[in-house]
Amino acid sequence: MGTSMHTTADGTVARKETYDLIASNKVEGTSVYDRAGERIGEVHNFMVDKVSGQAAYAVISFGGFLGIGEDYFPLPWNQLSYDTSVGGYVVDIDRNRLDGAPRYARDEATDTWRGSVDDYWARPVLI
Amino acid sequence: MGTSMHTTADGTVARKETYDLIASNKVEGTSVYDRAGERIGEVHNFMVDKVSGQAAYAVISFGGFLGIGEDYFPLPWNQLSYDTSVGGYVVDIDRNRLDGAPRYARDEATDTWRGSVDDYWARPVLI
Repeated sequence: MGTSMHTTADGTVARKETYDLIASNKVEGTSVYDRAGERIGEVHNFMVDKVSGQAAYAVISFGGFLGIGEDYFPLPWNQLSYDTSVGGYVVDIDRNRLDGAPRYARDEATDTWRGSVDDYWARPVLI
Repeated sequence: MGTSMHTTADGTVARKETYDLIASNKVEGTSVYDRAGERIGEVHNFMVDKVSGQAAYAVISFGGFLGIGEDYFPLPWNQLSYDTSVGGYVVDIDRNRLDGAPRYARDEATDTWRGSVDDYWARPVLI
């Protein structure tokens, strides 16, 4: 694992690798924004492959502002980009597509949602 | 992403993928055992690459039984194996090597420990 150096905006030199890492419990609670910069919710938790340690889904929770309380929707991890300027994750997906995504109630087993989530996000976008 | 089927010990067929995933907040707090089956502590949290979502280190916390309270030691993620029979992670490392591993006090920045942790675990084992 090499150490990569880079120069930050304020001219200081930092080890890039430091900024690449985030503590799991800090991901939980991080804000998630849509492509318009509107906050759509926060990361409730994320699902990790036990063996490889690879994150597979970020589970987004959102409150009452859409009129839906306590709902969670899992997004494939690769749909999220970390944006240091907002200190959160940005999801570059059309709002209608997000709103139609499968969601589930608190503490539902992975079993119950994984199939539909994979199907939904593998489906081509209809415009 | 294919669905892999397997038969469990009690004869039921399950989708293997379900058991591959664990929620991030469930990893936190999971017990960690040494190769002798002795509990050495628990996962405090784990450090994830923000972009790729790949877990890099599991940060193990352990209490007073070694006489060291509130200490954390980061282990490269690939040193941990999940063992369903104990419901926790097993670290197949000699106890002396574990005891000599770098540790840090609560809430220390990744900066301060990453170099020494990488150096320690990259070093060949001296017997």
